Amino acid sequence: MSLAQALFSPRAVALVGASGDVAKNTARPQRYLKKHGYRGRVLPVNPTRNEVLGERAWPSLAEAPGEIDHAFVMAPGDAVEQALEDCGRRKVPVMSVFTDGFADAGEEGAARQERLVARARALGVRLLGPNSMGLIDIPARLALTVNAVLEMDALPAGATSIVSHSGTMLGTLLSRGAARGLGFAKLVSLGNEADLGVGELVELLAEDADTRVIVLFLETVRDSARLAAAARRAYSAGKPVVVYKLGRSPLGAALARSHTGALAGEDAAVDAFFRDCGIVRVDMLETLLEIAPLVSGRRPPDLKRAGRVAVVTTTGGGAASVVDRLGMLGVETVAPDKESPIIDLTMTATPEQYTAALDELLASPACDAVLAVVGSSAQFHPQLAVEPILRSKRNAKPLAVFLTPQAERSLALLAAQGIAAFRTPEACADALAAYCAWRSPRGRPSGTVELPRDLPRRGRLDEAQGLGLFASLGIAVAEHEVLAPPGEAGAVCLGIADRAAFDREVRAMLARVPGARAVLVQKMESGLAEAIVGYHHDALVGPLVLVGAGGVLAEVYGDFALALAPVSEDEAAAMIESVKGLATVRGYRGLPRGDLRALAAAIAAVSRLALLAGQPVAEAEINPLIVKRHGVVAVDALVTMKE
Amino acid sequence: MSLAQALFSPRAVALVGASGDVAKNTARPQRYLKKHGYRGRVLPVNPTRNEVLGERAWPSLAEAPGEIDHAFVMAPGDAVEQALEDCGRRKVPVMSVFTDGFADAGEEGAARQERLVARARALGVRLLGPNSMGLIDIPARLALTVNAVLEMDALPAGATSIVSHSGTMLGTLLSRGAARGLGFAKLVSLGNEADLGVGELVELLAEDADTRVIVLFLETVRDSARLAAAARRAYSAGKPVVVYKLGRSPLGAALARSHTGALAGEDAAVDAFFRDCGIVRVDMLETLLEIAPLVSGRRPPDLKRAGRVAVVTTTGGGAASVVDRLGMLGVETVAPDKESPIIDLTMTATPEQYTAALDELLASPACDAVLAVVGSSAQFHPQLAVEPILRSKRNAKPLAVFLTPQAERSLALLAAQGIAAFRTPEACADALAAYCAWRSPRGRPSGTVELPRDLPRRGRLDEAQGLGLFASLGIAVAEHEVLAPPGEAGAVCLGIADRAAFDREVRAMLARVPGARAVLVQKMESGLAEAIVGYHHDALVGPLVLVGAGGVLAEVYGDFALALAPVSEDEAAAMIESVKGLATVRGYRGLPRGDLRALAAAIAAVSRLALLAGQPVAEAEINPLIVKRHGVVAVDALVTMKE
Repeated sequence: MSLAQALFSPRAVALVGASGDVAKNTARPQRYLKKHGYRGRVLPVNPTRNEVLGERAWPSLAEAPGEIDHAFVMAPGDAVEQALEDCGRRKVPVMSVFTDGFADAGEEGAARQERLVARARALGVRLLGPNSMGLIDIPARLALTVNAVLEMDALPAGATSIVSHSGTMLGTLLSRGAARGLGFAKLVSLGNEADLGVGELVELLAEDADTRVIVLFLETVRDSARLAAAARRAYSAGKPVVVYKLGRSPLGAALARSHTGALAGEDAAVDAFFRDCGIVRVDMLETLLEIAPLVSGRRPPDLKRAGRVAVVTTTGGGAASVVDRLGMLGVETVAPDKESPIIDLTMTATPEQYTAALDELLASPACDAVLAVVGSSAQFHPQLAVEPILRSKRNAKPLAVFLTPQAERSLALLAAQGIAAFRTPEACADALAAYCAWRSPRGRPSGTVELPRDLPRRGRLDEAQGLGLFASLGIAVAEHEVLAPPGEAGAVCLGIADRAAFDREVRAMLARVPGARAVLVQKMESGLAEAIVGYHHDALVGPLVLVGAGGVLAEVYGDFALALAPVSEDEAAAMIESVKGLATVRGYRGLPRGDLRALAAAIAAVSRLALLAGQPVAEAEINPLIVKRHGVVAVDALVTMKE
Repeated sequence: MSLAQALFSPRAVALVGASGDVAKNTARPQRYLKKHGYRGRVLPVNPTRNEVLGERAWPSLAEAPGEIDHAFVMAPGDAVEQALEDCGRRKVPVMSVFTDGFADAGEEGAARQERLVARARALGVRLLGPNSMGLIDIPARLALTVNAVLEMDALPAGATSIVSHSGTMLGTLLSRGAARGLGFAKLVSLGNEADLGVGELVELLAEDADTRVIVLFLETVRDSARLAAAARRAYSAGKPVVVYKLGRSPLGAALARSHTGALAGEDAAVDAFFRDCGIVRVDMLETLLEIAPLVSGRRPPDLKRAGRVAVVTTTGGGAASVVDRLGMLGVETVAPDKESPIIDLTMTATPEQYTAALDELLASPACDAVLAVVGSSAQFHPQLAVEPILRSKRNAKPLAVFLTPQAERSLALLAAQGIAAFRTPEACADALAAYCAWRSPRGRPSGTVELPRDLPRRGRLDEAQGLGLFASLGIAVAEHEVLAPPGEAGAVCLGIADRAAFDREVRAMLARVPGARAVLVQKMESGLAEAIVGYHHDALVGPLVLVGAGGVLAEVYGDFALALAPVSEDEAAAMIESVKGLATVRGYRGLPRGDLRALAAAIAAVSRLALLAGQPVAEAEINPLIVKRHGVVAVDALVTMKE
């Protein structure tokens, strides 16, 4: 029996801690399994009753008869550890744990979780959770969860599968999808992901015949390497992976941490990571639901320029609400050979005219996606309103529909035909922008780099050593000389004109900093602008390379580009383009252009620190790197090794 | 009969161009008036039929019998002008025009509209539209509109009134509100607002007994002075005004222009205008609906610091989705005396515990608003889920509720009690942020300023004249001298060390620029940072004052603060705080602090250009204004008069 089978299609499920009191959430899984037509055996385990909700119950998992593929544990306290021992003895391959009080509950809980996982590994039992609300497999009719959303009558079947850190939000997506005809295949609440993590679940879903789009609701990323590999596998299988991740604001990040006991990474790093492995990131919660048909069966557009969306509408105001938002997100609106960026058909257009206008746009090479906006008629004449859209030839490119009124039936008609339909102009624009920003998983430059032999392997390098490291990577560094054995220096003096001034300044400096053991003399450099180029080994996503405008701009404005290292020179050039503050060396307002090729080469060179065996560098930064008309030069170097 | 009565409670309505073909939208007003219980007389006017939809019809407005309070014109072409003449003759006080082909249709249409308005003024007839979808008064049972949303059975009554440039979006708001128990009083589609504009309608609504919140969907602002006065009147009447305005992106602005034939202002100017007159601006479409109960009956919080929201929830993931967003919008999440910023009650809390936690927050001085998040139970046990919220003591401060699942009944229960409930975490955060950013209408500094006598009254001033103007306002300007009669100069030379260098550079300069008639010599100035301070007479909203970081930062990053001029020194100080790039003189990273008091004084001084009689200055800019440890000094002046 495979892991996927035991998780999603178990022949028998034991419910450890099943309650007979229907008011309790621990009574729900048994009710839901029955309500939604589970065809396997259900074995309630309850030490105080021999019958639960009309089914024979057993005092312990050890005593429950027959082969059990999946144990769902809701019992409090030590009963979890006991159930694990029983699973080991009974060869139950998967145990899902709803019980909390593990990494979600402070240091003590985290230690308890560590012991639980270690024991599960020793016993050969895979764990979902703890603190998981369970899982749902709609085609398999398995509703193994405490989530109250399962009170709904018919679970909507579809090709989208969801993996979520939050059990409630999993229910939210299912509930909202069901109300408008969006269906699902598998839904998994990860809980603390002590053992089974988002990466492994994406791997399973990449192989799952029922799944065409994989949707993730994440509070953090714990095992980025596994998720990266899984995302690439899903990509190869033609299954887009879409993510909504919390922690975009500092408080949100702190909250995700306190909530899950996990280390939430800085959002920019995680964002670079998603882009790197071809994951589509959305900004709004409902987009996560609504985008699935837009990306299903599609490949990334991999644009080298801003995305272009063409629009056909029967309502000017409705279209403008999406187009305005698209503009804010950097997506252009275009119309082939038309004066206005929007094809406004007004209220008098025939359905045939609407379909014709839509087909023209869907066939046009001038746009990357098409937006259709439908006005009031979508509410009371749903079939009429969406008919022209259903008839369109929409294979060539993604089509998004925004319906201005309350219009569940129109939404459902579109959903039934696999057409992406949106309730709000903001989610519609979010989805189109996310599609346009979607890239294939990136292949990284390979090769090996060696540290200069004389470089220390630990601690913080001094200025000259740092410059030496960058020089060894092929970056021009300011001419410099060290006038005594290397050590710590603590003062800087600029603009020395001649030898006499030099002697005077050095004497003064040594007097000011009595412990100084060395003086670094460096040629004054100036150029068109200053950039900052950095390398950082992120605890969550690994080596990153950064470029920003120099001085305090990168920090004050959050104006920098970040990518997983190493990067090629072309990728570095694209990074430079996205830094606003470097406009001053891109020919902005007639200012002289800087040597962006050389800057890109320097970024690529710094990023090759990731190719050092064992990736020993924790952090490396050139600040400033002076950008000249011809070439760049590193003036100041800061390098810290991991050890 | 007052204008409000004729518009909203006419005793008799003529429908000019009423069709007997129910498939046509021109048949709708007659059907909708009947369907929704209009109690006055309805007079269809149709030149080719003497019966329309079972009612006696008249060949022309002139022949329709009895007193008519309101004519609704749908007839094409010249019939509009004819109907206007008939209204004049029959003393019909208001004519609403659905017919398009006016300012919405190019220059010719704009000229036609001008003629129509001129004639209406001459005849004493007030116009709504043209290109208006009509209006609805729910308490008065008047559904005088072609909007298909009126197919709904029962119109939801409530205390929110809407004024919209887009007729479709008016229907969108009504339709979405109705689906979840949000009700309305009056709804008006402005169309081209040739005569009756948003300002006058806000005035009417400020006086309207049925209206407690005024909601605006705007594509542009045409008469800012009238809207400003109306917003202040609504404020005095205790009625918050909330706006969603298109044109935030350059394309959106262009579209609003092409769509309505109006000049859409730069969004930042319009934003400053809304803030100035106490209008709450929201970012998302549904917020416009959902925010009404949050602000109804409330005054602006007028915070001098970031807003603070306290949170109680039964779902960590659901709360985090709002809190994360709040953080992105600069709103803090706080909890009195708690470790986590969120009070997470988990699934086991009793309703009493929930209410108690909520009441504690609602009474706490530590927060400005409270957010309650409800999970899955909101869907299938609505009464149970919202009961603890309905029981809370919620008068003290605004309460926002986010429901994670599909939960129309819970939404309606909350709406019925006047509690603000939100469908999406994003709109919920948008509303809370908009509430925290809400300010009272601003009183402007008064006084008069006089231009120096020797200053030209037209065209562009030269450098010395510009500096002279700023000096006359009390701003320190760099020492300078003009060595020949004023004229145009065309070259700059910096860093002249002594007399010999000066003579050499002037000779060289005059050789390079043969037409030069004057040389301005100025003392070199340096300081801690450069700022830009500007004044601009905006065509839509009037005089504005701006401060940004110097160089290209203000433009590259859009990093500037804008306010309607004049401003006080305290207001100028608040503007400085909001410019990120000026962090460098606010003590950022231990950098020396600049003289921000002097900078604020200079901003206030520049803003007093608005106090010149006749406001003759079109544009004035100090770039750079050098910020020193003590004082500021203007180095370069650019001043253009209007004429």
